[in-house]
Amino acid sequence: MATQPTGLKLREEHLCHGGKIQFYEHFSHTLGLSARFGVFLPPTACAGQKVPVVYALAGLTCTEETFLIKSTALAEAARLGLALVAPDTSPRGAGVPEEDKDWDLGTGAGFYLDATQQPWCKHYRMGSYIAQELPEIVEQALPLDSARRGIMGHSMGGHGALIHGLRAPTFWKSISAFAPIVHPAVVPWGQKAFTAYLGPDQATWRAYDAVSLLEDGYKHPNTILVDQGEADQFLQRELQPWHLQHAAEQAGQKLNLRQHAGYDHSYWFVQSFVADHLRYHAANLKAG
Amino acid sequence: MATQPTGLKLREEHLCHGGKIQFYEHFSHTLGLSARFGVFLPPTACAGQKVPVVYALAGLTCTEETFLIKSTALAEAARLGLALVAPDTSPRGAGVPEEDKDWDLGTGAGFYLDATQQPWCKHYRMGSYIAQELPEIVEQALPLDSARRGIMGHSMGGHGALIHGLRAPTFWKSISAFAPIVHPAVVPWGQKAFTAYLGPDQATWRAYDAVSLLEDGYKHPNTILVDQGEADQFLQRELQPWHLQHAAEQAGQKLNLRQHAGYDHSYWFVQSFVADHLRYHAANLKAG
Repeated sequence: MATQPTGLKLREEHLCHGGKIQFYEHFSHTLGLSARFGVFLPPTACAGQKVPVVYALAGLTCTEETFLIKSTALAEAARLGLALVAPDTSPRGAGVPEEDKDWDLGTGAGFYLDATQQPWCKHYRMGSYIAQELPEIVEQALPLDSARRGIMGHSMGGHGALIHGLRAPTFWKSISAFAPIVHPAVVPWGQKAFTAYLGPDQATWRAYDAVSLLEDGYKHPNTILVDQGEADQFLQRELQPWHLQHAAEQAGQKLNLRQHAGYDHSYWFVQSFVADHLRYHAANLKAG
Repeated sequence: MATQPTGLKLREEHLCHGGKIQFYEHFSHTLGLSARFGVFLPPTACAGQKVPVVYALAGLTCTEETFLIKSTALAEAARLGLALVAPDTSPRGAGVPEEDKDWDLGTGAGFYLDATQQPWCKHYRMGSYIAQELPEIVEQALPLDSARRGIMGHSMGGHGALIHGLRAPTFWKSISAFAPIVHPAVVPWGQKAFTAYLGPDQATWRAYDAVSLLEDGYKHPNTILVDQGEADQFLQRELQPWHLQHAAEQAGQKLNLRQHAGYDHSYWFVQSFVADHLRYHAANLKAG
């Protein structure tokens, strides 16, 4: 493994669509652990040009590989000249008792927030990792344009894209999501995770809940793109996109919520519309 | 699981690119075991039209899911109106001692042939499964046009596509391969598998070796499309595409062998050129 000045170790690299897919490992000071992420560099970046970049956050149980393998985004990203960065979904090996017991809490379920409660708060700090450390190290090491940075995600990763994009609208210039958890404070996945990571005081949950952020005045200047399958098995219980639609209307947030008959929660759904998302980001980030 | 008149059980189905991705299980009389395969039906097939179909054979260690998930072929197949059928790479649970010992023999390594040697010959019959049983059952159950059928594959699956296409050129009307094992009789993967499945008499190997088939007069009326990465880690030891090029020249077989600098053996390579392969098949099968 080649070690770069930033402490990044390149674990794997393949030529793909004239660009490069790379998988890195590094010691994360935010997480206090070794962490992994994947990158796709389009041909223009491989030729040395600084390119716009979209961070892609995956859902429960996924890793840094999932979006890059299953979303089928690379062909269109290569055409548009967009880089992709895909982080892992939680710390790995934090040593929290029971972190591997449930698939929706602990390993693979970091919820892109900073835990405040014992025993999670030492390592479960994906919030700061996404908001700061990961962009710093990857944009220092690779030809990515820090002035043109978007964020997208699927399911728990859609939640991550919405909250990070709303909280830092000049940092993340475009936001899109597939089947996001829009209002974790009122659904089982979110309530379980937030109770564990943030404790019982629900006032502290608002900083990590897209609907609450809109209610509290956070807003993004660009239209947010959201795709939702109408046959999604988690639609009624966990996703409830109508909360986002209502909050966006109330807040004057531009939102393009597209609902697709027959599509479910899987990456077969994501891949069906991923090219639209990349074109949305490319247009907002003035790619190409 | 819904059971159809053909004995097919639909295990999983998702809407994708306006078409359907489906995973089936059935009892295979050829293999004497339960077997699985995946199908992609483009939107035209879902609307009831009979469509051309390409069978996609995966490589060592893969399953019926691998090509459909990792090749990223579905968007282009949907556009072209091509169905895809992806079988498993071997029988599963045949009970042969040591079938799970090595990754290049036994489970996941059926080599798309009919074994003649004990203890393999009872179940390791992927040759007849691909040549007859699978097309029969899938084309009876689904709106696929049996007069417009192509075959493609990757690595061991590229070997499978070449030998089946050459042996039955009116049955398989188009052939393409990524990084195929073109001459298994002279390389370690092939020698190990053929010795186990077919025995030491190398005369019996010729029926399952693309180069030998061309030497023995087998030929396909259409151009065979082959893509090979020049940075493929198995190029020199296992693939040796120059044998195919030489044999095709000697036999007068039209061959489009494209060599790609920097690409390796992975599905990152396959996905970079899969749309070209689908367009090749669509043109030969008069899709759309």
